[in-house]
Amino acid sequence: MAEKAIQDTYADEAAVCYGCGRNNTDGLQIKTHWDGKKGICRFKPKPHHTAYPGFVYGGLIACLIDCHSLATATAASYHAERRDPGSEPQIRFLTGTLTVRYLRPTPIDTELVLYARIKMLREKKAAISCALYANGNECAQGEVIAIRAPEELDLSHSQDE
Amino acid sequence: MAEKAIQDTYADEAAVCYGCGRNNTDGLQIKTHWDGKKGICRFKPKPHHTAYPGFVYGGLIACLIDCHSLATATAASYHAERRDPGSEPQIRFLTGTLTVRYLRPTPIDTELVLYARIKMLREKKAAISCALYANGNECAQGEVIAIRAPEELDLSHSQDE
Repeated sequence: MAEKAIQDTYADEAAVCYGCGRNNTDGLQIKTHWDGKKGICRFKPKPHHTAYPGFVYGGLIACLIDCHSLATATAASYHAERRDPGSEPQIRFLTGTLTVRYLRPTPIDTELVLYARIKMLREKKAAISCALYANGNECAQGEVIAIRAPEELDLSHSQDE
Repeated sequence: MAEKAIQDTYADEAAVCYGCGRNNTDGLQIKTHWDGKKGICRFKPKPHHTAYPGFVYGGLIACLIDCHSLATATAASYHAERRDPGSEPQIRFLTGTLTVRYLRPTPIDTELVLYARIKMLREKKAAISCALYANGNECAQGEVIAIRAPEELDLSHSQDE
């Protein structure tokens, strides 16, 4: 499995995401590791990430599934193009649709593990399926439709759009 | 429109949610106001709630839709039962399924406004539709299936479950 997280190969200007940007020191710093077939994410919730006492907030689970699925799509796309993650031109995905099914309450006092798998990978679109586990129990399932950003997307100017 | 936010009528032990709990000082403090027909939420993102420079993180949008939709289901249920919000026995909802469609990038430098409407309200289940606007443009749509928690759910013991 790749030692370096996919998010740590993103270009600096794309690494400001609240969910997974290494340059966002107020963010969640979600990390995805690609093992050649799937993306793996491990995350320890903080005590304030609660919904009800003892359980993880569903919105945090949505954040984990979102960033982890996009990073897995990015890794899979570099893999399909036989390129190193982070190599130019950078591959970037945006979320089109995010669906989360909450199967059972997710305990907050343990590490969460997410596995993301590619269901469909096309030139401009990917579908990713994601499962979240706590203490060996599947607690949530996610489906993400990711849209590949055009290469000419210049993030440094996107604020003026 | 009710001056008091629905979340501010939740019992203390249920008001710890990272998304909308008034007792979670590290949280987002999302607030829903019920006008008798729909739930209205206004939220000003912080600069660190970014996805790419200038735009709101999709996971934050998922959080807003989640908490705002559950609060709207809570308000609508009290309304249907002709009871004051927060009156005993407390009405509580949990998220069953959350779907978010991202229609366009959401600018971060403005107030976001969300409208949530009840699509279905049954004894143990509700369906809520939610639209998020920025500068008058609809930027995201959400659908939430909410499950009504049984009255006997004792939050003070849920950690031992």
